[in-house]
Amino acid sequence: MMILRDPVHGLVSFEAAEFSIVPRLMEAEEVQRLRRIRQLGLTSLAYPGADHTRFSHAIGAAHVMTRFIGRLRQIHGDLPFDQRITTERARDAVAAAFLHDLGHGPLSHLFEEAVPDGPGHEVWTVRIVLNPATGVHRILRDLDPGLPERVAELIQGRHPLAFLASTVSGTFDVDRCDYLLRDAHFTGVSYGSFDLDWLVRSLRFGHPTSAGGAPHLAIDGVKGLPAIESFVLARLFMFQQVYFHKASRASEWHFSRILLRIRHLLRHGVPVTPMPPGIEALLRTGDARLEDYLALDDAVLWSALASWRTAQDPILSDLCQRLYARRLFKTLELFGADRRPERYAELLELLRDRARASGLDADYYVGLDEAVDVPFDNSDDPLAVIFPDDVARAPQEVSFILGRLAGETLTRTRLVFPTELREDLLAQLRSAPLS
Amino acid sequence: MMILRDPVHGLVSFEAAEFSIVPRLMEAEEVQRLRRIRQLGLTSLAYPGADHTRFSHAIGAAHVMTRFIGRLRQIHGDLPFDQRITTERARDAVAAAFLHDLGHGPLSHLFEEAVPDGPGHEVWTVRIVLNPATGVHRILRDLDPGLPERVAELIQGRHPLAFLASTVSGTFDVDRCDYLLRDAHFTGVSYGSFDLDWLVRSLRFGHPTSAGGAPHLAIDGVKGLPAIESFVLARLFMFQQVYFHKASRASEWHFSRILLRIRHLLRHGVPVTPMPPGIEALLRTGDARLEDYLALDDAVLWSALASWRTAQDPILSDLCQRLYARRLFKTLELFGADRRPERYAELLELLRDRARASGLDADYYVGLDEAVDVPFDNSDDPLAVIFPDDVARAPQEVSFILGRLAGETLTRTRLVFPTELREDLLAQLRSAPLS
Amino acid sequence: MMILRDPVHGLVSFEAAEFSIVPRLMEAEEVQRLRRIRQLGLTSLAYPGADHTRFSHAIGAAHVMTRFIGRLRQIHGDLPFDQRITTERARDAVAAAFLHDLGHGPLSHLFEEAVPDGPGHEVWTVRIVLNPATGVHRILRDLDPGLPERVAELIQGRHPLAFLASTVSGTFDVDRCDYLLRDAHFTGVSYGSFDLDWLVRSLRFGHPTSAGGAPHLAIDGVKGLPAIESFVLARLFMFQQVYFHKASRASEWHFSRILLRIRHLLRHGVPVTPMPPGIEALLRTGDARLEDYLALDDAVLWSALASWRTAQDPILSDLCQRLYARRLFKTLELFGADRRPERYAELLELLRDRARASGLDADYYVGLDEAVDVPFDNSDDPLAVIFPDDVARAPQEVSFILGRLAGETLTRTRLVFPTELREDLLAQLRSAPLS
Amino acid sequence: MMILRDPVHGLVSFEAAEFSIVPRLMEAEEVQRLRRIRQLGLTSLAYPGADHTRFSHAIGAAHVMTRFIGRLRQIHGDLPFDQRITTERARDAVAAAFLHDLGHGPLSHLFEEAVPDGPGHEVWTVRIVLNPATGVHRILRDLDPGLPERVAELIQGRHPLAFLASTVSGTFDVDRCDYLLRDAHFTGVSYGSFDLDWLVRSLRFGHPTSAGGAPHLAIDGVKGLPAIESFVLARLFMFQQVYFHKASRASEWHFSRILLRIRHLLRHGVPVTPMPPGIEALLRTGDARLEDYLALDDAVLWSALASWRTAQDPILSDLCQRLYARRLFKTLELFGADRRPERYAELLELLRDRARASGLDADYYVGLDEAVDVPFDNSDDPLAVIFPDDVARAPQEVSFILGRLAGETLTRTRLVFPTELREDLLAQLRSAPLS
Repeated sequence: MMILRDPVHGLVSFEAAEFSIVPRLMEAEEVQRLRRIRQLGLTSLAYPGADHTRFSHAIGAAHVMTRFIGRLRQIHGDLPFDQRITTERARDAVAAAFLHDLGHGPLSHLFEEAVPDGPGHEVWTVRIVLNPATGVHRILRDLDPGLPERVAELIQGRHPLAFLASTVSGTFDVDRCDYLLRDAHFTGVSYGSFDLDWLVRSLRFGHPTSAGGAPHLAIDGVKGLPAIESFVLARLFMFQQVYFHKASRASEWHFSRILLRIRHLLRHGVPVTPMPPGIEALLRTGDARLEDYLALDDAVLWSALASWRTAQDPILSDLCQRLYARRLFKTLELFGADRRPERYAELLELLRDRARASGLDADYYVGLDEAVDVPFDNSDDPLAVIFPDDVARAPQEVSFILGRLAGETLTRTRLVFPTELREDLLAQLRSAPLS
Repeated sequence: MMILRDPVHGLVSFEAAEFSIVPRLMEAEEVQRLRRIRQLGLTSLAYPGADHTRFSHAIGAAHVMTRFIGRLRQIHGDLPFDQRITTERARDAVAAAFLHDLGHGPLSHLFEEAVPDGPGHEVWTVRIVLNPATGVHRILRDLDPGLPERVAELIQGRHPLAFLASTVSGTFDVDRCDYLLRDAHFTGVSYGSFDLDWLVRSLRFGHPTSAGGAPHLAIDGVKGLPAIESFVLARLFMFQQVYFHKASRASEWHFSRILLRIRHLLRHGVPVTPMPPGIEALLRTGDARLEDYLALDDAVLWSALASWRTAQDPILSDLCQRLYARRLFKTLELFGADRRPERYAELLELLRDRARASGLDADYYVGLDEAVDVPFDNSDDPLAVIFPDDVARAPQEVSFILGRLAGETLTRTRLVFPTELREDLLAQLRSAPLS
Repeated sequence: MMILRDPVHGLVSFEAAEFSIVPRLMEAEEVQRLRRIRQLGLTSLAYPGADHTRFSHAIGAAHVMTRFIGRLRQIHGDLPFDQRITTERARDAVAAAFLHDLGHGPLSHLFEEAVPDGPGHEVWTVRIVLNPATGVHRILRDLDPGLPERVAELIQGRHPLAFLASTVSGTFDVDRCDYLLRDAHFTGVSYGSFDLDWLVRSLRFGHPTSAGGAPHLAIDGVKGLPAIESFVLARLFMFQQVYFHKASRASEWHFSRILLRIRHLLRHGVPVTPMPPGIEALLRTGDARLEDYLALDDAVLWSALASWRTAQDPILSDLCQRLYARRLFKTLELFGADRRPERYAELLELLRDRARASGLDADYYVGLDEAVDVPFDNSDDPLAVIFPDDVARAPQEVSFILGRLAGETLTRTRLVFPTELREDLLAQLRSAPLS
Repeated sequence: MMILRDPVHGLVSFEAAEFSIVPRLMEAEEVQRLRRIRQLGLTSLAYPGADHTRFSHAIGAAHVMTRFIGRLRQIHGDLPFDQRITTERARDAVAAAFLHDLGHGPLSHLFEEAVPDGPGHEVWTVRIVLNPATGVHRILRDLDPGLPERVAELIQGRHPLAFLASTVSGTFDVDRCDYLLRDAHFTGVSYGSFDLDWLVRSLRFGHPTSAGGAPHLAIDGVKGLPAIESFVLARLFMFQQVYFHKASRASEWHFSRILLRIRHLLRHGVPVTPMPPGIEALLRTGDARLEDYLALDDAVLWSALASWRTAQDPILSDLCQRLYARRLFKTLELFGADRRPERYAELLELLRDRARASGLDADYYVGLDEAVDVPFDNSDDPLAVIFPDDVARAPQEVSFILGRLAGETLTRTRLVFPTELREDLLAQLRSAPLS
């Protein structure tokens, strides 16, 4: 019997037999490892409360799944008998929700983006679930030999019931439902919240027009429209305020330069110590042994970074000293005409000149950071809104606000450079203005 | 100009010139180090959201001080001119609030309690502030050569204005005001909140009866009584629910056994690697160089602990494996007659027998944990409640609830033992009941 | 299908077939009448947000009942088959919860207390439910001829299943659960909230020791103790801050004087117009026809009161003018020795003298108001706390705070008098101090 | 000294000398009258919590003004000395904020819209402030003979300092800031909230390009953009969810039919009793004596409506019976092609036919309701966003979301008809579909 107090969802319990898989999985070392991986990487450098971990998000996602399942059962009487939510399907889904982020590396997305040619976190998640040596695999297998495979499929968004797959990975999946609320709670960005109760209550089944089509997750058109709207807007606000925050992006860029430098050194035979085997293998070969990857977490990385401050390589030591002491890079956001791609090379060249003139290696000290998101992309596996007469409409057709957002792209473009170049750069820009 | 979004207090700003000391101090490495020290040690093992750091608490405490100062200025017209809140005093106070926890070691109180003969965190704080080699000292000294000394005094609760000292260290100090709200927000224990606005607004000056007595911080008797009551109850709830939670206490006890074992090994010449110099010095000699102490943080400790899982000493490796994988010790709370001290030796002996019979070293695997607090101790430097006619009364005289709590002691006593002894122990207790 | 947005509970729905009785009952005129009766009488004179009605409370109480029933069903597997929550019992209980306050007069408790020899609101509720002429009766009867009787019994706390009766009327009944949260939300008194989720989740069945005893509602001893504690404290705070607030009590006293005066006039044959028949009958005879009683609501009363401001009787017109324009009576709270009953006559006589000296009728302009509550009375139908080993203990035995509150009496005693007597009275008291 | 607990803003105080005008004005009968006028008319028929009054909104608006003034004083150092916020200006502004809605009739906007040829509530507000016979006027005049006139000007959005005028009446005025948060709190529509702290903190002065232009209220471009965005979206959500809710609109339409019928009866010499003089005069002549207007409030109206249920005129009595018992009119929202104006006459004629066929007077029983709003109209007195380099930009140029909303029109169009026509109408529409 497991009951937890969660600051986001309040009382969280996994008491039902079909959900007891969560407390079991919690005993696996690969799950406990998520306690040592911050959900938002270095975002706490900008939002001092954002120290929450992937572990709390995993619990939250599993909890949201129990609520989705409760709702789907309220309405699955509409479906053919063989498409309903059996106990087994419920268990599979909550396990997939709980494990979906298992493969994150230290600092979550940061590590992944700083090692772009390595396997993504989803690949690692699947490896962990399918590898017979892991605790997670053993626990799943002991319950049902087919479970590891089914959970891995679900995590990749595949399931015979399309609507169940989309609760794990889709426009309104349990992952998003939890991380938006969680990141909002811990950063203190109140705009990021939305009404989860109402959203869950608005779930319905929609039926694709094609004959024989499987039911899809849809939203009640009368009660649910504001729920979608506020969900989409909450996500937009979190991107604008948190995920694309200048200090978040600058520190991510900063961190990627450190790994880039280490890769350069390793490839040139320069030893870097301490060097966790997982990082070394990834940077040298683009992949790593699962065991070594799992040994990586924020503590290991941060502890190594503390040592690298005294590395012999001046670039590596300087970059680590800056990040460790939170001397972040500065940014200058580009608006209007300056955001044309053809303008980028020019601006970047100017920046690189200034860096070189200051004795800095331009490859590691200046750059251009572009952050892109489509706040409401309803083109692929589109979500429908169902009206009382069973008519399905696209949200963008009936919503004042979504009609104005659908398919639109949000882009934030910034120059990145060290503080010491700032005045110099601004002076230059004033004399030869950007736009 | 510094504006932050804090999940506890909302908008936090240190814009006024007298508070600009906070953003300056934030650049010191000793302050940035607090980002790597969790406020509640291992409590996130029980409350998955409780990963917040001393850094966010430092900002919160400084913010609460700016609010206290705002209130004291509203009312200091009642005081002689030389006792009012000058710009300098405001700056000193906010600096003291911001720096008061600078000296915490890894996992905050846990480390301190696990090294009982080492200097407490307040001692380290004062050392950091007064040591000319630290960034904090330099920043303070550059503003005013007397500032490090004055801040260190304030942190220790000493100041010519008694009421100012008690804002840093007293019944309602800014430390408590922030940590109660913060710990409540991050654990999700809603009972721990109270109405800070109302509390601040209720602050008044009380005048001791002795001639020439200095004004003290007091509370308005009409508006402020519910504010005190809820503050005291919030604190009581947090102790009951969080600080004295069985998993918190068990993991603290667990951690202290690990350091105890390392000390034993070091004193017997058994090498333990890796061994951060600060920990080694403290365990060997009871003290450490400031530089080595400051190199300690959660990442360093947690990373070392990961390595110690494969230490040669079987007790150390086993204890570290258990903590790392969250295989915590179990507890059994004692009620009624079992809580008599004379009963303790008997119970403990029984436990030690069972441990030995299972091949476990009783010194490291079983114990008795007693947690004690006085929820409302108003005897030392008592807080007064001031009524419209300027009559001062003790809160316990006019409050229904505080009258029933004042001076009472809350004690939680528990046996601590590993899971594998549980059934065995319960069977034994049933056949020879505890009480 | 009924889904509502409630500011207290969020999404409220009565979709299940067994709860569809609520939307049906909502169509009855006697239920709609509750929209015109403020939950807290004149408390909005002290707390400007407290304009919420009995109607919203009725919905809230019914909603809490649906949650209680959900919980009881999770655990009723422990009970003999014939003691479980059938669909019929669920429907009866939610109807009783929804209708329990149907009999309130204008301004809720105020009217009842100002007409002390009239039937209480529970009596009126039962009359409405049982009277074949009401819409409520018809709706109940049409569903099941025995339903009016069963609902009336439940509202009076009687049911073959003791635990079900106590959900409607007991220490933790749905009435209290809703009104505490609701009154806290609308007054803005944050202290009045508690964790309803946790409380509901903590419900268990307790078994009286007597052989053949029926199961009672109890609380889980491990998870539920803080839930009880905070519930009891929330209630205590609401009494201290709201229900016993000086302006609430003074306006209640004020209102009772107006009805007292009207009764005096009516009994002496002095016509008062307009005179709603329900009020006239109650004041003349101590009872009224149901039809006339149901015609009374806040609008009718308030509209009459506006007219009475120009009544010929100078006392009636003056009292009404004062209340209408919120010129409330003042209060002076008595502490310590002044609260001895023997002291009351003396103080009251002094007040009456001052009133007469100012040309005021002492019977209508001065008085002594005593407000009494026992914050945690666990003596009658005591609530038990159940520990994992099925041992039942009284909450006061295991709770630090409840042990100090159980059976204690909270009393607030105040002199009541018009503003114009204030200075005079204070002067007198200073020269001959009260205590 | 006045301190209040407000459920929306928490602690509200008007302690500063310059704000003591609020507690004084609170004693005026015209202000107390606002306690008897619901902020949202009949919206509580759809949202059971929405019983809050204009009185609580008046306090809230005055409180927000004190916060605006606090912020303006932080930044008015940038302005010439004679444009700063003096004590007198602060007092004037807070008085205007407090009194700005004084002229509302019963049920607020509903009454105004149901008497379209009568004076609007702003006109009545100004009359009350300027009329020497009112309590409000006397209180203002006693403080300063020019005050009534200055307050009346401010309420009408006129003041020598343009930015001060726009705090009372503009895109971000204190009225909107309070009512959005307040209506959201009392309806429970969480989407309607926004971050007032951040908004206030983002206020800056903008300078129009024209030479000699006065400073305008503007928003900080770095910190303030999300504050504007969420404010605009909160307003949009409140319109969609609450103000344009089908039951709100249907009951407003319903109420307007009742007054229309009474006007018809009065003009044809048919007596209607009871008939408050204010209503009679307005319906007969289009205006009323101030004294009679002030005697109108929700209680008077609701009490009259109860009596009109038994009026001889069958239309009046039926409409009143329906509204009193909440038998509301139904609506059918029109989408797509059906919203073309040329389609309206056709639809309406169809509805009128159905009504007549059922023996109902089409003028009173069917209609077409069109609700229109421009969620972000920044064309008139446009608000600017100021960037660090002092460049002013229009919000729609720099905001992803506002750029997509600016100038767009939200329209909701619905047919209105009694329940009994519903099936009949739907059948007809199905056979001859609307679009």
